[in-house]
Amino acid sequence: MLRNIIDITDLTVEEIDQLIATAEDILANPAKYQDACAHKQLATLFFEPSTRTRLSFESAMLALGGSVLGFSEAASSSTAKGETVGDTVHTVSCYADIIAMRHPKEGAPYAAAQFSEVPIINAGDGGHNHPTQTLTDLLTIHREKGRLDNFTIGFCGDLKFGRTVHSLVNALSRYENIRFVLISPAELKLPRYVKEEALKKRGIPYEQTESLEEVMPKLDILYMTRVQKERFFNEEDYLRLKDSYILTPEKLAEAKPDLSILHPLPRVNEISVAVDKDPRAAYWKQVKNGKFIRMALILKLLNIPTFS
Amino acid sequence: MLRNIIDITDLTVEEIDQLIATAEDILANPAKYQDACAHKQLATLFFEPSTRTRLSFESAMLALGGSVLGFSEAASSSTAKGETVGDTVHTVSCYADIIAMRHPKEGAPYAAAQFSEVPIINAGDGGHNHPTQTLTDLLTIHREKGRLDNFTIGFCGDLKFGRTVHSLVNALSRYENIRFVLISPAELKLPRYVKEEALKKRGIPYEQTESLEEVMPKLDILYMTRVQKERFFNEEDYLRLKDSYILTPEKLAEAKPDLSILHPLPRVNEISVAVDKDPRAAYWKQVKNGKFIRMALILKLLNIPTFS
Amino acid sequence: MLRNIIDITDLTVEEIDQLIATAEDILANPAKYQDACAHKQLATLFFEPSTRTRLSFESAMLALGGSVLGFSEAASSSTAKGETVGDTVHTVSCYADIIAMRHPKEGAPYAAAQFSEVPIINAGDGGHNHPTQTLTDLLTIHREKGRLDNFTIGFCGDLKFGRTVHSLVNALSRYENIRFVLISPAELKLPRYVKEEALKKRGIPYEQTESLEEVMPKLDILYMTRVQKERFFNEEDYLRLKDSYILTPEKLAEAKPDLSILHPLPRVNEISVAVDKDPRAAYWKQVKNGKFIRMALILKLLNIPTFS
Repeated sequence: MLRNIIDITDLTVEEIDQLIATAEDILANPAKYQDACAHKQLATLFFEPSTRTRLSFESAMLALGGSVLGFSEAASSSTAKGETVGDTVHTVSCYADIIAMRHPKEGAPYAAAQFSEVPIINAGDGGHNHPTQTLTDLLTIHREKGRLDNFTIGFCGDLKFGRTVHSLVNALSRYENIRFVLISPAELKLPRYVKEEALKKRGIPYEQTESLEEVMPKLDILYMTRVQKERFFNEEDYLRLKDSYILTPEKLAEAKPDLSILHPLPRVNEISVAVDKDPRAAYWKQVKNGKFIRMALILKLLNIPTFS
Repeated sequence: MLRNIIDITDLTVEEIDQLIATAEDILANPAKYQDACAHKQLATLFFEPSTRTRLSFESAMLALGGSVLGFSEAASSSTAKGETVGDTVHTVSCYADIIAMRHPKEGAPYAAAQFSEVPIINAGDGGHNHPTQTLTDLLTIHREKGRLDNFTIGFCGDLKFGRTVHSLVNALSRYENIRFVLISPAELKLPRYVKEEALKKRGIPYEQTESLEEVMPKLDILYMTRVQKERFFNEEDYLRLKDSYILTPEKLAEAKPDLSILHPLPRVNEISVAVDKDPRAAYWKQVKNGKFIRMALILKLLNIPTFS
Repeated sequence: MLRNIIDITDLTVEEIDQLIATAEDILANPAKYQDACAHKQLATLFFEPSTRTRLSFESAMLALGGSVLGFSEAASSSTAKGETVGDTVHTVSCYADIIAMRHPKEGAPYAAAQFSEVPIINAGDGGHNHPTQTLTDLLTIHREKGRLDNFTIGFCGDLKFGRTVHSLVNALSRYENIRFVLISPAELKLPRYVKEEALKKRGIPYEQTESLEEVMPKLDILYMTRVQKERFFNEEDYLRLKDSYILTPEKLAEAKPDLSILHPLPRVNEISVAVDKDPRAAYWKQVKNGKFIRMALILKLLNIPTFS
């Protein structure tokens, strides 16, 4: 039963809940899982560099007792010799038991999966999907709040190009009684199609605002995003907007004492380093959670029994 | 007893047969070998990138329970600081138990081996040797045909620059009753010295032709090769010749039902993707075989007892 | 008890002696340590390439039964996306148990250590510190001479820019009765501040000379250094000076029979290859020692009990 994870919606709500339960169990009892993937190999095929994601996958597999091989940028791959991405992935699927693949082109992991003899995990494809980031976000919310329903979440910054936001909005729209607050400059609002698909069609309430400070008091979760230079069409727009929504200790004065601050990282300066020491900052815990949810996902795709 | 594998002729026919027997045993009983190289380290020193070959070696070592270190392109190596390749290899031989080395310069692995304290496997040196590809080809023929003698094999495409062809012709010339059919445009014929050394001197029959379709019905094995752009002197010749010998389902209509199609990969378009589904296509099995014959070779060079 | 090793002086003389004792024990009984770091992960974060040092760390961790992840050049790191080095290191410290970090900027590992949740080893920072090279040198002297005191050591070549020399002079100045002989062209003399700090303040005798041959007969240890092209301000000076202090079999004619020749490597041509066969050449043993002292250091920083 080969299963690929290309998009977060490839997983049902029940499967996500199961993955979160497994990740919680690994966090509680890491030793129980330390040889679970013995003699298994993960290949990380990164056609564009992403240290953070690649190392998270590799660390996850190693912590399961498995081993790792792969490449970290396209220059080292056979594609440079005229090979199709499908053939490269097919080849590696002859060696490894599971593949995590990142590619700058949208849809590349989906296309490549047709040629693979082993499960493929999409580790990010252009501005499109990045399902393990979304799983990381969900695990973090679950660990911080003890639940995945009944809260108010604010998304702040670049909501137009930030794929992690789109994906998390989509994923959360399947849970009960979540109120969405969308905080961005007019130029970087959540795209209409995301609002239509994820929110309007399901009758989920949401609010749009340009002011972070105004809505701060009502938030249970604040999801900050990086203003990614590479998504802008010109330097001028980037410079004008990038500092609009910087989170500082001052802005947090009016926030709830049990607010949880998330960020997919890397950050440039959208969260002041001074916030790192605030107990409400959850983004470094989020980094760690990313490793554990990936462990859970690898176990699931390799059909290795878990104990949760 | 240090032994390097620089050229396929460093191995006797008996040693090759033994390696094939070991590889077949690993394929049949992988669990028996999964800790055979525990506490051993393979270094992959790739002075030029080759994902396919590097990952095959790494996957092989990991599947034996060993571990892997190395680099995947010259830019990351000390050679950039003015060090000789000999000193780089000597250094790594102080850390690892065995080295697989690829280098763009012909003869570099042979020269480097003089400075190594551990066995060296040539993983390709320029247009020269690539003995583990040849071993892969031999294992594939053995698995497909059940023997390494008594068949008609056609080599098609670029027979002039394709080192894998030269090496396989050489290796097969040591077995009984093999008929060679050399299929190429006049510009890309098998070099005279290969024909002299491997075939004429031993009185082995061969046939040269420009037409793949004409000889197709008599072939037991068809070895296709990539027309490598980097081997051409000018763009025009490349464009004129590259499509001359493309294998399609139509051309296979006249082929034997038990033909085996091999290709060292990567391919550009010399085998149509539609052929992949033909049961006679053996080139993806060939990729897998490459891992297993490398496992056998690593075991041999590390003097680890096998059970075959 | 988190401990970082940024500078060799982060370690007391007693701690260095203990590390050397551990390394000697590992060399004598490697099997005793082969699973000591099972389930532990080392991250090698190399913001500039250094194959030799990176592979030494990786081989060390693998020989302890641990596993390895990381990157070998800055281009593959998130820093390219505007992330600070501190955030990159913090992130990786959420995955791995210990980090070896190399960076072209002086002080970067010290700064990064403030953000790490796990121990950091400085694997070289610009022209500044490289403590594991110094530990390697000390282990080599200890193995060659059986002691770390009471000898005459000559440092030859580029004493101005060679950080390994500065660091070793500093480290040795804490042991008894060592006589320093500083051999260099006037342009590349040991900097005044090193002489002040390490030697003059402690009343340690030293001698400066331009002639290697003149002082050769009195040396117990000769530490050769590479004339690093990248440290020179202009090509002309480099060409004039680089060959000044080349060690040849002829120059060794007047040396003691139990001289030990060290070199941090890589070398360009400052030691003739013909010297490699001289039993007094200790630099290839030094390469091996580098792996074993790093094993000892990893064990110490991970608080893993040793048997020495």
